[in-house]
Amino acid sequence: MNDQSDAPKITVTTGPITGSRKAYIQGGTTAQLQVPMREVALHESANEPAVRLYDASGPYTDDNVDIDIFAGLSRLQTDWIKARGHVEEYEGRTITDADNGFVSKDRLVQTFPVTNKPLRGTGTGPVTQYEFANAGIVTAEMEYIAIRENQGREQAAHEASSEGESFGAEIPEFITPEFVRDEVARGRAVIPSNINHPEAEPMIIGRNFLVKVNANIGNSAVTSSVADEIDKMVWATRWGADTVMDLSTGRNIHNIREWIIRNSPVPIGTVPIYQALEKVDGVAEDLTWEVFRDTLIEQAEQGVDYFTIHAGLRLHYVPMTVKRVTGIVSRGGAIMAKWCLYHHKESFLYEHFEDICEIMRKYDVSFSLGDALRPGSIADANDEAQFAELETLGELTKVAWAHGCQVIVEGPGHVPMHKIKVNMDKQLETCGEAPFYTLGPLTTDIAPGYDHITSAIGAAMIGWFGTAMLCYVTPKEHLGLPDRDDVKVGVITYKIAAHAADLAKGHPGAQYHDDAVSRARFEFRWEDQFHLSLDPDTAIDYHDQTLPKEAHKVAHFCSMCGPKFCSMKISHEVREFAANGLADMAETFRESGGELYQDVDKLEALKASNKAFEQK
Amino acid sequence: MNDQSDAPKITVTTGPITGSRKAYIQGGTTAQLQVPMREVALHESANEPAVRLYDASGPYTDDNVDIDIFAGLSRLQTDWIKARGHVEEYEGRTITDADNGFVSKDRLVQTFPVTNKPLRGTGTGPVTQYEFANAGIVTAEMEYIAIRENQGREQAAHEASSEGESFGAEIPEFITPEFVRDEVARGRAVIPSNINHPEAEPMIIGRNFLVKVNANIGNSAVTSSVADEIDKMVWATRWGADTVMDLSTGRNIHNIREWIIRNSPVPIGTVPIYQALEKVDGVAEDLTWEVFRDTLIEQAEQGVDYFTIHAGLRLHYVPMTVKRVTGIVSRGGAIMAKWCLYHHKESFLYEHFEDICEIMRKYDVSFSLGDALRPGSIADANDEAQFAELETLGELTKVAWAHGCQVIVEGPGHVPMHKIKVNMDKQLETCGEAPFYTLGPLTTDIAPGYDHITSAIGAAMIGWFGTAMLCYVTPKEHLGLPDRDDVKVGVITYKIAAHAADLAKGHPGAQYHDDAVSRARFEFRWEDQFHLSLDPDTAIDYHDQTLPKEAHKVAHFCSMCGPKFCSMKISHEVREFAANGLADMAETFRESGGELYQDVDKLEALKASNKAFEQK
Repeated sequence: MNDQSDAPKITVTTGPITGSRKAYIQGGTTAQLQVPMREVALHESANEPAVRLYDASGPYTDDNVDIDIFAGLSRLQTDWIKARGHVEEYEGRTITDADNGFVSKDRLVQTFPVTNKPLRGTGTGPVTQYEFANAGIVTAEMEYIAIRENQGREQAAHEASSEGESFGAEIPEFITPEFVRDEVARGRAVIPSNINHPEAEPMIIGRNFLVKVNANIGNSAVTSSVADEIDKMVWATRWGADTVMDLSTGRNIHNIREWIIRNSPVPIGTVPIYQALEKVDGVAEDLTWEVFRDTLIEQAEQGVDYFTIHAGLRLHYVPMTVKRVTGIVSRGGAIMAKWCLYHHKESFLYEHFEDICEIMRKYDVSFSLGDALRPGSIADANDEAQFAELETLGELTKVAWAHGCQVIVEGPGHVPMHKIKVNMDKQLETCGEAPFYTLGPLTTDIAPGYDHITSAIGAAMIGWFGTAMLCYVTPKEHLGLPDRDDVKVGVITYKIAAHAADLAKGHPGAQYHDDAVSRARFEFRWEDQFHLSLDPDTAIDYHDQTLPKEAHKVAHFCSMCGPKFCSMKISHEVREFAANGLADMAETFRESGGELYQDVDKLEALKASNKAFEQK
Repeated sequence: MNDQSDAPKITVTTGPITGSRKAYIQGGTTAQLQVPMREVALHESANEPAVRLYDASGPYTDDNVDIDIFAGLSRLQTDWIKARGHVEEYEGRTITDADNGFVSKDRLVQTFPVTNKPLRGTGTGPVTQYEFANAGIVTAEMEYIAIRENQGREQAAHEASSEGESFGAEIPEFITPEFVRDEVARGRAVIPSNINHPEAEPMIIGRNFLVKVNANIGNSAVTSSVADEIDKMVWATRWGADTVMDLSTGRNIHNIREWIIRNSPVPIGTVPIYQALEKVDGVAEDLTWEVFRDTLIEQAEQGVDYFTIHAGLRLHYVPMTVKRVTGIVSRGGAIMAKWCLYHHKESFLYEHFEDICEIMRKYDVSFSLGDALRPGSIADANDEAQFAELETLGELTKVAWAHGCQVIVEGPGHVPMHKIKVNMDKQLETCGEAPFYTLGPLTTDIAPGYDHITSAIGAAMIGWFGTAMLCYVTPKEHLGLPDRDDVKVGVITYKIAAHAADLAKGHPGAQYHDDAVSRARFEFRWEDQFHLSLDPDTAIDYHDQTLPKEAHKVAHFCSMCGPKFCSMKISHEVREFAANGLADMAETFRESGGELYQDVDKLEALKASNKAFEQK
């Protein structure tokens, strides 16, 4: 199967982000940990240490790592997992034609060249991070995450700005491994980490950590290929996607997923009902618990880190959607609603929820409880159907916890700004503070082609209010399958929303990045400004469109205003004037008996400012 | 001067927005008014009347109007203005070399071919809309605006959704001319309408009207030309810019402005200090009241509708900025700060504020009180300097009102989400509810190249809280002068923010647009969805990138999910199932004695939903 003739041609983007290099922070007591950071060295005139930024991009941005897509990434977590015990290697399920959607042999995507036997929990002790956390055990993953979330701020001594409005979130000044454990134990955070995806770099999703971003990829029956999907996965993480959902629905679904997982440095999520539907040839009413169960095991053995399970859609909620402008817009939700109505039965996802828990626990697959009844338009926001389902998701969260599983809860959708906060408040209350994971929400329906923006507004707000992970929306939403460019725009847009949320929450690891950019801007360190930005390539390109010469990269202006009108330039002159001018002014004041400043308070304010300036 | 040899080559985009046509609503008692609307006819299967949308694009999108850039637009307001009296035609100021920045003759942009004598108030009675409003007079402009703001909703009988959180704004179900008058009289709204810009279609800026968007254009010393700037002005209004600011700073500034105003269907704003600085060859300290005064008259005679005046920057506020990360980032602010410090004096803008009022009153130029000390970074948001200046802007607002002038107040800048609302609250309190006009605010500094998005988040929020007009930010912000594509992206992004704000405020003229799009989407009326969107061309392009065939425009899916996985498609099937299924289910229930629904409440809910469905 591994001859080169039928091997897919796969190229991915490697090498550091422009102006950055990969740095590693050493640490760990349970294992030797190397926690990756994106490090930006500044111009010597800055007289500042290099800036370390959170880095989701994996080994692809490390010049010292040889990338071989046909071998997959190194399996860094395997030793940790095996050392903890309570797991066994076994033969695993046999791959069937159904797994790849009955694709004809000449169109079958090559099997991934390397095979690993799957692991599963033996039931003799804790397997999931939730179980370890509740047993009081700090795992290597938790230690890794503590280092990662701090972004080196305990060393950098940058001023931690923790003012903000966190709406009840409790973000500590520094993240300790014990804090990570405690948050996971309380169900307030999850570490999506299937024991069969040891290639992933541990990360955490929770309200008291940095807000995370998910990027959706995946082929559909209409378009795209394995090479495209791997490229998109690497590309999405390059720009900051913290997790990737593979929402493939076409043929070759099993084989494409294997290529993705083996090469993914971030947790992978899926919606197993999509593949189950392929197995019954797209006829929703032909779905059965057995087909679904088999699909869960198939994907758990491959290493999927979290499953969207639409178990909150109960039969009697379906009629609540008939008055809606846009009905049911969740694909999984629509499939299950059809099944329920056809059979006049509660869904097998709800009926077999505890069976599902037992499967997911064995592999530490986290639940992402799907919001099958999320609103698909402004008109349908916060309606009876949506909130009825949320109540059920709250019940199911507690059932999953009781089975030792990790849980996040999915949220809307399309919601106007004034209706966003109640979504967060209700979710916190109903779901016992399990992390909320929302799609946008889109704050208006009128801009197809720009829904990354309509939704970034809602995403930033709900992230501020407490949502732990934001599912990106690309410019192609409602219109077609996103391509590479759309993926990048979607990810960068959502990194903006997530960071804006971190700032507003007063996350102590947020504002130093803004301040570094702003200092570079004010000091005309153009290259530093570019390199520190979320997307240096675009910043450089935009700058160079009007001022391409090298000399302009050290110029004290840009083409927006030109040299005479640059406020930053004049502002520097103002500072110089002020240094002399204020001294003169004080003299004038003394001589004139206070002509300019007749107000003592103002004089004091002036003196204080002047002093502060001189100390600078 | 009008021979074709040295005539600039100017082309602008004309013709309707794809899928729309220009419609006019007739009305008016003081004049025969033809108020333009963008009208989108829907597919016959929709069984809905054509949708009428607010339209800022002027005659350029009317197929029945011949556009001649060399003649300018027709002067629709002239008769109204002259009929009201208290104005006189006069010779006007002589154009000097200084007005065009001492450009050499071979580089001088051609004078606009048509000359009109300027009008000015005689001082014998009201001239400004504020004066008419306070005299109890409803002007033609006010009638026009009432029709325009209603968007035909009194005829269309679409359900006005007025739920929302308006934070004290008082938006009526329908806008009457008397309501417009009252809002203008109270200073809560302005109608920027220099009596020398009769080509403009009247529009209003105020918290109790639709949120407006301004687009900045203008050349700098480094780049761009007259043709580019006119093209950008028409292009910006095509996509929805409600006003345009000409921020030109280079040579030819007078002549370029004339071309822009004569062809602009929207109010034009400027920052006169920019031109004044050109007249003193860029040396801030050489500025004088006389040069500035002369510039105000020059621009007022041309027809500039509002002036940014940085009179709130007082000498003793300057030292408050020395500790800032990014100093003073307003260009006008930086210029005036330098002047103040150099001369150790209060600025001539502050000292001569009443003289400025008298000039602006004569032409009905509205004040846009500039926020010279707005924050240029997250670190500087809401600091002492910013709020000190706001207090002064509040004082000046009342002075300007006392002189019969219209006033809006400018606001920040860079502000993290949790610090946005206090900006709005303080402005309302300090400035007597004069309309707030903000740049963004940008909610993070880390994404140069994407500042249209970092700022759209803040703009949507502050628009919701009460800001009346949002100044757009383009992707080139901080990097260079925006080109045509940037202008479009900036405008569409800000139309999204403004509309999201209208929705959240519960504006009764907002949600019908979303609902029309969403119904089209759910019913697979692809063409209707495209045509109703803010940017049909981009929506069509994105759709066609993956599904180009005509047949796919009527397909019940898109490439995102493909036919089997389309939730909208399945959702329709669910509705059909529900129609039959629910009836069957009720039977089952009766036969089984309630096996499926043991809970009476749930049965009642089901029945109610079922009934609602049957009524549909």
